[in-house]
Amino acid sequence: MYDDLKQRVYEANLDLQKHGLVVFTWGNVSGIDRGRGVIAIKPSGVSYERLTPDNMVIVDLQGNVMEGDLRPSSDTPTHLELYRGFSGIGGVCHTHSLYATMWAQAQREIPCFGTTHADYFYGPVPVTDTLTRDEVTGPYEVNTGRVIVRRFAQIDPLHMPAVLVANHGPFTWGKDAAQSVENAVVLEQVAMMAYGTLLVNGRQDCISQALLDRHYLRKHGKNAYYGQR
Amino acid sequence: MYDDLKQRVYEANLDLQKHGLVVFTWGNVSGIDRGRGVIAIKPSGVSYERLTPDNMVIVDLQGNVMEGDLRPSSDTPTHLELYRGFSGIGGVCHTHSLYATMWAQAQREIPCFGTTHADYFYGPVPVTDTLTRDEVTGPYEVNTGRVIVRRFAQIDPLHMPAVLVANHGPFTWGKDAAQSVENAVVLEQVAMMAYGTLLVNGRQDCISQALLDRHYLRKHGKNAYYGQR
Amino acid sequence: MYDDLKQRVYEANLDLQKHGLVVFTWGNVSGIDRGRGVIAIKPSGVSYERLTPDNMVIVDLQGNVMEGDLRPSSDTPTHLELYRGFSGIGGVCHTHSLYATMWAQAQREIPCFGTTHADYFYGPVPVTDTLTRDEVTGPYEVNTGRVIVRRFAQIDPLHMPAVLVANHGPFTWGKDAAQSVENAVVLEQVAMMAYGTLLVNGRQDCISQALLDRHYLRKHGKNAYYGQR
Amino acid sequence: MYDDLKQRVYEANLDLQKHGLVVFTWGNVSGIDRGRGVIAIKPSGVSYERLTPDNMVIVDLQGNVMEGDLRPSSDTPTHLELYRGFSGIGGVCHTHSLYATMWAQAQREIPCFGTTHADYFYGPVPVTDTLTRDEVTGPYEVNTGRVIVRRFAQIDPLHMPAVLVANHGPFTWGKDAAQSVENAVVLEQVAMMAYGTLLVNGRQDCISQALLDRHYLRKHGKNAYYGQR
Repeated sequence: MYDDLKQRVYEANLDLQKHGLVVFTWGNVSGIDRGRGVIAIKPSGVSYERLTPDNMVIVDLQGNVMEGDLRPSSDTPTHLELYRGFSGIGGVCHTHSLYATMWAQAQREIPCFGTTHADYFYGPVPVTDTLTRDEVTGPYEVNTGRVIVRRFAQIDPLHMPAVLVANHGPFTWGKDAAQSVENAVVLEQVAMMAYGTLLVNGRQDCISQALLDRHYLRKHGKNAYYGQR
Repeated sequence: MYDDLKQRVYEANLDLQKHGLVVFTWGNVSGIDRGRGVIAIKPSGVSYERLTPDNMVIVDLQGNVMEGDLRPSSDTPTHLELYRGFSGIGGVCHTHSLYATMWAQAQREIPCFGTTHADYFYGPVPVTDTLTRDEVTGPYEVNTGRVIVRRFAQIDPLHMPAVLVANHGPFTWGKDAAQSVENAVVLEQVAMMAYGTLLVNGRQDCISQALLDRHYLRKHGKNAYYGQR
Repeated sequence: MYDDLKQRVYEANLDLQKHGLVVFTWGNVSGIDRGRGVIAIKPSGVSYERLTPDNMVIVDLQGNVMEGDLRPSSDTPTHLELYRGFSGIGGVCHTHSLYATMWAQAQREIPCFGTTHADYFYGPVPVTDTLTRDEVTGPYEVNTGRVIVRRFAQIDPLHMPAVLVANHGPFTWGKDAAQSVENAVVLEQVAMMAYGTLLVNGRQDCISQALLDRHYLRKHGKNAYYGQR
Repeated sequence: MYDDLKQRVYEANLDLQKHGLVVFTWGNVSGIDRGRGVIAIKPSGVSYERLTPDNMVIVDLQGNVMEGDLRPSSDTPTHLELYRGFSGIGGVCHTHSLYATMWAQAQREIPCFGTTHADYFYGPVPVTDTLTRDEVTGPYEVNTGRVIVRRFAQIDPLHMPAVLVANHGPFTWGKDAAQSVENAVVLEQVAMMAYGTLLVNGRQDCISQALLDRHYLRKHGKNAYYGQR
């Protein structure tokens, strides 16, 4: 019944590993079928070698397992908050990729230092607030989602498909599961380049708004002219 | 007679290489059978290509070779001290992995900067004292074990399955040989992330106790809810 | 009709990926046939897996597609400016390789810190001016080429086959497409070595003119004595 | 006639590439037959894919080609100076490996920060003087060898089988070609660890003489007890 969704989410999870962004079982991708009100997500703590399209877990938007014998990723409540808060997204990805996590741990947004960044992320990649003690001891994974959505009060998540959760690591999203993974790969590259830029020149400024506009809009929106049409 | 133990220790040694943590023969893993009072350990200076389950060396807790034609790892006395000092552990792993070794050489504990760390290590990863001249010129490998055990006087090794030996490199342990290797892999990731975090923000603080508790206890202990049950 | 040119440009594009300089479709190589007044270049946004010699795009020097069903790389106008401005070159390569991009983002030329650099680049690798607002909002890709050519007013592009476009990344060139890729590979190595040199010794000076001459001229020009003749 | 020497030197050159220490043709290994007064060395500028045991070049100690159709490595005169200056060595290796080259370019010796270093190199890895203008414009490759030998006036090359040529990169040596490559691999690891150690703790001291003695002598000399006997 959810075969197509499960297949695509399965492939996106494998892509994550193929791109070298995960160690062991650290990382999870989900995709949503908004018509039916369900998501497919990676099971918790299952190694990539044992993943099959069939063991993806189908969960409704209240977090109830609708299909599947395994427990869904422990980060499922965070994914659900993102789908609730960001109505335009179709896939969510979470990793502990090295360089993005360094910035998340350092609690610094990633400045837009160049066009690689501007091609995908329309401004600095934001970092969330630290969760309060109550947020940590309460429903932690739900609150992780909430702190992200709160951070986007003034930011359009469709133009900034990534966030750094303070003390933790990145979440990325996109129109579907595959694109959320693509954005995770790009975020890691951008995080690495920004890291080195900072070490070479500690006072480097962001690029100009004009250059940011040019690159972002070259790839996104109705006047895009990159790629094949 | 010790076939099962030797097989598992052999596989753990190969895993170490598979994860890219060793160059040449630098690295060794052991496992203990506490009932019979023996450990199996990698032979000294034998390349990973020539390892077989059969050439793992069986040593009793006094360091006598019980089975095997090869000499055991020169670090065997250190492993034995750890098994003696930490009664709850079943496997020990030693590497010179790059980033963990950098911290060991810099004689700085690895601060808990994020949840990747908190998922596995309950607090900063400690660094031992420098060995004294007498400890170095005496039974060096035994003393290396003792300086580790001494460092854990106030720390529960079951909640902190890793240490940095000053001027040397990491030792990790776990319930068995395989888990000691898993912890070595995680330690290297955590060391790398902490290194970058420090370079991005030299004054970064540790995460809160609440967040450390949340993540560590999410994966360990009776209320754990990560993975499949 | 352009089969040979397309084949060579195709192979150069694959080499770029083989050397690990590209993620997704970030990177493009072209080659020119000056006799016929055309270049072959990678199509825009097509994955390396789907590239064939046949889908290389043939474009004349005014940017008109002469052969091919796909749109050429969006960076084509930059390539054309370089072929126009640097009459001695036969191939152009653009990447967002990590370390070269760090320097481009940091807007610092790469100093000649050693003989690896001197073997290929006769002096510091220059960085362009930042494009003005008008240059960015106008014909951006053409202007990117112009800002490069302008930077070489006093530099011989045949002895300095690389540039860092400020806020963006490297362009390299050579006698043909293959050599432009070779120079991109070397530039990335040189950028990485210079990065580390700077971190180890922030006040490191360039090498002497005598050593630069010796190494560069050992490999280039009529008295070269490196390699087979 | 020199088949055995050529075979071993060929394998050592391939090992160099297998360990990821060379890009393109940057790197060369030689081995000496002191009885016959010849060395075998890699031909100049020939790609690793085209190397065969047969195209290794046999050169006498005055630099005359005795066997082989190709020109020997342009660094041959440096190798010959080392064989002349260091009578106990049997193989020489030269690379531009990334981290060792960073230190060479930064003109800083690599301090002995840990036991990985002490296992192979008995003290800090020295850096040569910068070559004078006359040394550069004169017989450059010969002078490179001389500046190395001069640096070892007070150092035993058998206990310090590596040097950093200022502004250039590392040379390593050993009892034969294979061991010179092993030392090149270790040097790169040690250079990387020392680099990170310095960034984590800019004021880190060398290890104690006692620890250096213990580790170096554990592996070398008549009381060694590492490995199989």
